[in-house]
Order: sequence, then structure tokens, then C-alpha cells
Amino acid sequence: MIDMKTDLLIIGGGAAGIPAALTAKSFYPDKKVTMIRKEPKAVVPCGIPYISTTLNGEIEKDVIPDTMLTGKRIEIIIDEVRSIERESKSVTTSKGDQINYDKLILATGSEPIVPPIPGVNVKNVFSVKKDARYLEELFSAMPYSEDIVIIGGGFIGVEFADDISKGDANVSIVEMLPRCLMAAFDEDFCAKAEDELKKEGVNIYTNCTAEAIIGEEKVEYVKLSNKDEIKADMVILGIGVKPNVELAKNSGLKISEKGGIWVDKYMRTEDKDIFAIGDCAESYSFFTKDPVPLRLASIASNEGRIAGANAFKLRRINEGTIGTFSTMAGNYGFAKTGLTQKDAKDFGYEIVVGDAEAPDRHPATLPGMHMIKVRLIFEKTTAQLIGGEIYGSGSAAGCMINTVATMVQNRMIIDEIPTFQMGTHPLMTCSPANCHILNAAEDAISKL
Amino acid sequence: MIDMKTDLLIIGGGAAGIPAALTAKSFYPDKKVTMIRKEPKAVVPCGIPYISTTLNGEIEKDVIPDTMLTGKRIEIIIDEVRSIERESKSVTTSKGDQINYDKLILATGSEPIVPPIPGVNVKNVFSVKKDARYLEELFSAMPYSEDIVIIGGGFIGVEFADDISKGDANVSIVEMLPRCLMAAFDEDFCAKAEDELKKEGVNIYTNCTAEAIIGEEKVEYVKLSNKDEIKADMVILGIGVKPNVELAKNSGLKISEKGGIWVDKYMRTEDKDIFAIGDCAESYSFFTKDPVPLRLASIASNEGRIAGANAFKLRRINEGTIGTFSTMAGNYGFAKTGLTQKDAKDFGYEIVVGDAEAPDRHPATLPGMHMIKVRLIFEKTTAQLIGGEIYGSGSAAGCMINTVATMVQNRMIIDEIPTFQMGTHPLMTCSPANCHILNAAEDAISKL
Repeated sequence: MIDMKTDLLIIGGGAAGIPAALTAKSFYPDKKVTMIRKEPKAVVPCGIPYISTTLNGEIEKDVIPDTMLTGKRIEIIIDEVRSIERESKSVTTSKGDQINYDKLILATGSEPIVPPIPGVNVKNVFSVKKDARYLEELFSAMPYSEDIVIIGGGFIGVEFADDISKGDANVSIVEMLPRCLMAAFDEDFCAKAEDELKKEGVNIYTNCTAEAIIGEEKVEYVKLSNKDEIKADMVILGIGVKPNVELAKNSGLKISEKGGIWVDKYMRTEDKDIFAIGDCAESYSFFTKDPVPLRLASIASNEGRIAGANAFKLRRINEGTIGTFSTMAGNYGFAKTGLTQKDAKDFGYEIVVGDAEAPDRHPATLPGMHMIKVRLIFEKTTAQLIGGEIYGSGSAAGCMINTVATMVQNRMIIDEIPTFQMGTHPLMTCSPANCHILNAAEDAISKL
Repeated sequence: MIDMKTDLLIIGGGAAGIPAALTAKSFYPDKKVTMIRKEPKAVVPCGIPYISTTLNGEIEKDVIPDTMLTGKRIEIIIDEVRSIERESKSVTTSKGDQINYDKLILATGSEPIVPPIPGVNVKNVFSVKKDARYLEELFSAMPYSEDIVIIGGGFIGVEFADDISKGDANVSIVEMLPRCLMAAFDEDFCAKAEDELKKEGVNIYTNCTAEAIIGEEKVEYVKLSNKDEIKADMVILGIGVKPNVELAKNSGLKISEKGGIWVDKYMRTEDKDIFAIGDCAESYSFFTKDPVPLRLASIASNEGRIAGANAFKLRRINEGTIGTFSTMAGNYGFAKTGLTQKDAKDFGYEIVVGDAEAPDRHPATLPGMHMIKVRLIFEKTTAQLIGGEIYGSGSAAGCMINTVATMVQNRMIIDEIPTFQMGTHPLMTCSPANCHILNAAEDAISKL
């Protein structure tokens, strides 16, 4: 049994824990920073779907090198924390070791939800765990699978389907809602994404649930609520995650009614020496300050940078989560920031919406031209930009959304946007006269 | 002789005139909007260098379709305005027609500067005029040119060299300053761009001027100040432009000491019924409010959107020019917004600078991965972001710079940036933990 002391202990080594460690070390170079995680290797969480085909099933290619941390003199311990003794400011690990901390950051992440479908424990039914050993099983079975059924048409489901469709297997998505990606985009954007997936050969079953997974030795088919039966050698469950809060709960920390660890705007739990960040912590809306069920690597990373900076002195405030994300379906990137029209209406906002579509090159005759569509959503009373959606060529959509996200975070109002000074270039962007973001704002203004 | 009346007359049909016309028509749909320009066809100005190889010499592919305007019921007249009669609020054209206006927008653009080099009038020496008929001569001669010398290593010169190098001709740049693109980027970014151009086979002569252009029937070689003689079948002059202000000057409008037409923050000249926008008008720095010699299509377009909205009622203010631009050299995009380190020091700012370099994919093992470098420049006293430079994969650099530009325009301060919520995606962007823009700010913070 080891008994050690560290200044800052971070439990968890994922998208929240890593930036927390790096930021803390950058602000407090003299402090000892220690990360403890149970996985021998840290996988890039967002990269997991792309192991399927693009990374040839090689999990090694989706691993975050530990040198990113050890190179900055951050210590890594591979072990699992069993309990937190808040009074003595220490934790006890599976190996029975005790680690004393001055400050503690919980970055324990989330677990995939396994739905109570009959047959969910049959062989070759996988959820998407951020665990290299578990993923090894999944990706070793994949090359032997001719028919793969994905239950859940959110980001993870769509990304697996998109990448699997680039290989040899047949792939199907089963989605309960009327469209895939419906929690993230307006309906017409979802329809466009489905069209792109279908072009890649993905079968899409919407308005439909999986009623049973059938198979003897391993999965054989999936029975749907619409009575269809889909052949399957493999099933991937992508219906969402639940925060890992047991450790926090058992040590008496407050859990929010929405299920995440309660935190203040500095990312502190009720215990001022313990922070919680990423999927295990509650996030609050930038717009309404209510809890929002958004669990994304980018949010985790943002919260990690706040907690890391605040570890020994309060320096940064969490202004609330905006929710900026992007995904690919076929040749198109789809990206979103802030609220969709449905979100905004659900919150009770009156909105005005502007659309613009234009080429991503100018002149449009240039080779490689792709159309890009931009939608901007404004709250009517304050004229404030509260959301944006983009689809178009991959990296352009993925990068452009961050321009809109910056506008949202700076609470820009509708009339500031058309005269916003965009840089343009023939081979890289739209023309200045035909700029999507500016013209979407002009379109909204014309509807006021 | 025709005598007609319009509500809004716009002189010039380029990057300033077009958005001015469209914006005015959108705000004031009942007003008659008329554009008068001398060129039968409007070329996309930024696209001109890419006619060389990428557009196979076909100027038609770089033409802005008039339907963009006529589709919105904007009238186009092909004719040249000879004089403005401010008292009677009318203009007289080359054809002798008279057009009465209620409001007038001058968008007369600029002309390339032709340097007083001996031999500058020899055949096959071209400047870069935004005129399809003139460009026809240039691009018909290009396929017969084996050795092309470009005088001036700014944007236009670099872009011509880059695109010509994709074809068969030998291409050389002659630049007076120690580096190409030096007015736009810090020295290390210029060096990187030169490296990329050299890889494409471009010969670069810096710290060097063209002393004479030699040739009998047509150009044969260029004599440099360093005594080198470069073989040349064609010379392209890209040393800058001067504003077209004759029309304004002759009608008694005030010309700024820096050479552009004087305008107020609404883009109005001294005559409240006459606006001036784009290359012919003076631009003022967002940072210092002093005149800045920046003449870009994106600035022209921005000013056009302001003047168009203000034509019949003041609605928009010009907050000053930031200067966001991007270009390509080989496989790399180079982009810049706001001030370079040199600009900032010249203005008397004390600065702190942060750099970060990271892959544009995550994990970095994904195919097509490109490194991207981001530099952020902050004013030390206020901690305000005043500039950014990026190089990396083309569309990513071209789009990412607009995120930085939004930050600059919103006067974001150094500590707001690391917790800025960026959307990320494996196939489209850096990882959230290793995000260039955020990490460049963290780097600058660590130097405070």
C-alpha cells in the first residue's frame, strides 16, 4: 500500500481531465498535478466511430499519447478510485493505495445507456465505451460482420453508420424520432443528412424502436416496432449516456436533479476543494441558465480549462453551455451552435430566422466547389443571435460554425452581423458579396 | 440623348457596388436602383489570378452573372460617367446621357499602379486590371509564355505565381522587401509561404527591384537591382493600386490626404447625398481610427453593405477596417486579421503574442491531416485581441481566420478566449484539448 500526497488530483483522463491537468500545470507550474484513470490507454472519444473503416480497425491510431501529459510533468497513475474521504482529503484506490490531495477534480465521465431490450446481452451487441480493451472486442468482431444495425440515430449512431458505409458491411440505423440527429438540427437539416447517408448506402428506419434483439450464439436479427426484422451480425447501441456520479454521491456531494454532479459557475461542487467537470458534471444553458443534457467533448474540455485555472485560485467563470457541434454524413459536414428553432420555441422565445446558400468558392466555376447553407436564429425582442446551423463541405462547415459560435457567445445582435468583416478567398470561401453568414442575417432582417 | 431619373445611382459594379445595390434593394424595395459601369462584363476581382491555370485561361468562368442584380430588379447601364452635377443631382455619361439621382454611391474602384520602370510599355507587360477585355489580352498571351516574371510579391503577385506554377511556365517573383507578403504577415509566416512557393517551383528574388524591362518586339528579360537578368516572355505588375477619385475630385468632393475619397462613418462624402465605398474611398483603422491603405474586396463589400443600408435612412455605422485576408501558397492557406506584430509596434502598442500548432484532425493519424499554426496578438494594457495569423490546410485557414476576426471585432480579451466554446470534429478540426486558437491564447497568458 502506497500513501502519497499530491497538490491536485484529477480522477479521469478523458476530454475533461486532460485539459484540466494541462491548464492547471500552466497556471500553477510549481504544483504537483496527478491524474488517475482506470484505462491503461486513453482513447480519443470522438474518434471512436472512425476506427471502423477510416482507421482500418486500428484502435492504436485513436489513442491519446500520454507524453502530452508526462511531457509537462503531470504524473499518471493507472488505477481506479474506490472512495473519496473528504474529511481527510484523500482517496482510496482499487489497489488499496491512498492518495492525499489538496484539490480534487472529478472528471469521471459517463457510461453508455444500455436499453432494456430483450436480447441486449446476446453476443456481438456492443455499446460505445471509451475503453480500449472493450473497443478491441467491438472492432475485432466488425470485419466479420456483414450486417450491422445501429440503434440510435444521434451523433454517435450517424458517425458509426457513415464510417461503416465506407467499408463492405451493410449498415442500418434505427431511430425512435421522425429523423436522425433531431435533437441537434432543424428538420430540413436532418433530412439533408439522411439523404447523404442514404446515398452512401445506409438504411434508415425512423419513427421506430428496436423491440428485441434475437440470436442464439450471437445476434441474428433485430425486431422493430414496425414489425420489420433486420438481419444483423452486430448491433451497436448509441442511445445516449448517463453521468458517472457514484463516487461523488457516495462521498456525500450533491447531485443535481438532472443527474449530473452539482457545480457552481467556477466548476466547484458543494465541497470547495472538489471540482467536477465534463460528462459527470451538470451543465447549464448559456441562454436560460437551466440544466441542459449536453455531453460533448468540447464542453468537457471547456469545463476542464475552467477548473484547471481555478484549482488554486478562482480565475475563470463558466458562462454556461452553448452547445457547438459538428458531424459528417457522406461528403457533407453538418454543424450547429446554440439553439435550434425547436429548442428556442420550447424555451418560449419568439424567433426570426434567416437562411442563405452560396458556393464555398468564388467564382463558383472553380473545381471542388460545394454549396454551403447557413441558418441563423435570432431572439426577436432583443434581436440577439441565439443559434446557427450550417451544412456544406466538411472542414468549411466544421470551421465556419465556430465563427457563428463566437457571434453567439458575444451576444451579437442582428444588425451587427451583415457588416461583420469576413475574410474571403477564391479557393477557400464564398465571395464577400455572397457571404452566407452575412446574407443569412440580411435575410432575417428582411423578415423583421 | 436620354434623360432618366433613378432613386439610387451606383457608379461602379465591382465588389463594393454589387453589395451596395443588393443591400439597398433589400432595405428599400420600392426605390429604383440603377448601377452604371463601363465594363460590359463584371469580373470576380479576387478570382483573376486563378484564371491562369485553375480556370484554364477562361475569363468567362470568372464573370459575375448580371442576373444576381437584374433578378432583384436592379437596372444595369453599361456606360461611363464623365461628370457629376451635384447642384442638379445628375450625372452625364460618355454617350451624352443624363441620369438624375436622388442618392448617389461612388464605387469607382482603383487602378493598378504602373511603376516608372524603363520598358514598362513593351509588349507583354501587363498590369492587373479588373476589365475582361484587357484580361483577354493577358490570358491569351499566357499560354505562349515560357518565362513569366511577376513584379511585386504581395497578394496579387503571390497568387499569380502560385497558380501559374500549377501549369507549364517558369515563374519568378521580384519583391523589393526582404520577404513576400510582408505587409500582411509576420516574418516567419512570410518565410513559410515562400517555402511553399519554392516547392511549387516559383523563383523568388527578394530585397530586389526591377530596374528595367528589356525587349524589342516584346519583353525579353528583366534587369534587377542585384544585376541579375531574368528571362521573360511576359511580365505581370502587381505592386499596388491607386484609388479612382477623378470623378469625385472634379465634382468638388473632398479627397483625404491619403488619396481616397473622404467619407464619414456612414460612408457619406461631404455631400450628404453622395456616398463613396470600396477602393475609391478612404478606409479607417478599427484600432486607431487613422486612415489605412487597405484595399480588399471584403472591405469593399462591407462598405457596400453599409452604404446600401444607409442610402435613404442612416442605419449602419462603419466601425473601421480590421483587414481580414487569406491567400494560398502551394497546399497551404495563409490568413490574417487585424494587426501584425510590426503593425502593432508601429502604432505604439505594447503586445503579448501566443502561438499554437496542432493537427487539423483528431486523432492526428486520420488521413489528410495537415498541421495548422495559429498566432494571436494582444495589446498588453487592455489585454484586448488585436490580431491573428493562421497557416494550414486551405479551407480551414480561410474559415478559421473568421473566428479570430469575430473575436477581434468583439474586442475579446485574453482570458475570455481559452474558455471559448469551440465545436470540434475528428474529420474537420483539431481536438478540443489541443485547439489552436484556445491554446495560442493560453500561451500568451503564460507570458503575461
